[in-house]
Amino acid sequence: MNVAFVNPFLSAILNILSTMAKLDAKPGKPRVKDNELACGDVTGIIGMASDQTKGTLAITFTEPVILEITRRMIEDEVSEIDDTVTDMVGEITNMVTGGAKKVLSEEGYSFDMAIPSVISGKDHIVCHKSRAPVIIVPFHTDAGDFFIEICFEQ
Amino acid sequence: MNVAFVNPFLSAILNILSTMAKLDAKPGKPRVKDNELACGDVTGIIGMASDQTKGTLAITFTEPVILEITRRMIEDEVSEIDDTVTDMVGEITNMVTGGAKKVLSEEGYSFDMAIPSVISGKDHIVCHKSRAPVIIVPFHTDAGDFFIEICFEQ
Repeated sequence: MNVAFVNPFLSAILNILSTMAKLDAKPGKPRVKDNELACGDVTGIIGMASDQTKGTLAITFTEPVILEITRRMIEDEVSEIDDTVTDMVGEITNMVTGGAKKVLSEEGYSFDMAIPSVISGKDHIVCHKSRAPVIIVPFHTDAGDFFIEICFEQ
Repeated sequence: MNVAFVNPFLSAILNILSTMAKLDAKPGKPRVKDNELACGDVTGIIGMASDQTKGTLAITFTEPVILEITRRMIEDEVSEIDDTVTDMVGEITNMVTGGAKKVLSEEGYSFDMAIPSVISGKDHIVCHKSRAPVIIVPFHTDAGDFFIEICFEQ
């Protein structure tokens, strides 16, 4: 996988969280996901496809961090992973992919976006079934951690 | 959503289970998913996209039924949702979508497939975040039930 594919997604999530949730997130080192299981409580997932490339983006949040992000974005209280929170995860997934798509199309990589899905359930695990490597990037915030996983085949 | 989009997915899963796992599955009535939560233990999910359409397919299995399907397909024993089982769910998701893609392209609908992801975790819930309706089809087998969810925007 071309590492140039990864940065636009990272910039997009940092930009969204900082402007819309006033939340600083510190990205850890991107690494190839290898026998490593990123558990989370809610995950946004979206497919990307074109004639030239196909891929998937997953953003997996633990409950405390997505509740805090949602509170800050809607400026209201949320106490559990309900429809408001899963809608927010779907929106974030769409926005991150849309932002990255724009940057990547300027660099000559184009793809169409599928419909985002949101999975909720305590400690679920996401595996991408591809021969291409999966890049995982952990993010740390004061409210907890989340993970972005990107997999692209060309 | 065009209902003509649904049947090729249903035919594909029935065909795969009957030929590769010698398992009869009885489809229930397709319905619009509305406040209804299909819980499962393992889900295969794949995005589909083109200039004209975008969509997502999810196949959610309970543990007993996917263990039985995997046993029959690999002709070996499996006792829990491990890599063998999640690989199988990824393969089934790919095969169902590939089969439906072929039929739909003959009918003038084309799309590219993203990379399948597989989510495991007890009783997780999948929501598709789209303004288009989500069609859910329950399937009954002697080993338990599973659900196919399809959402397409045109």
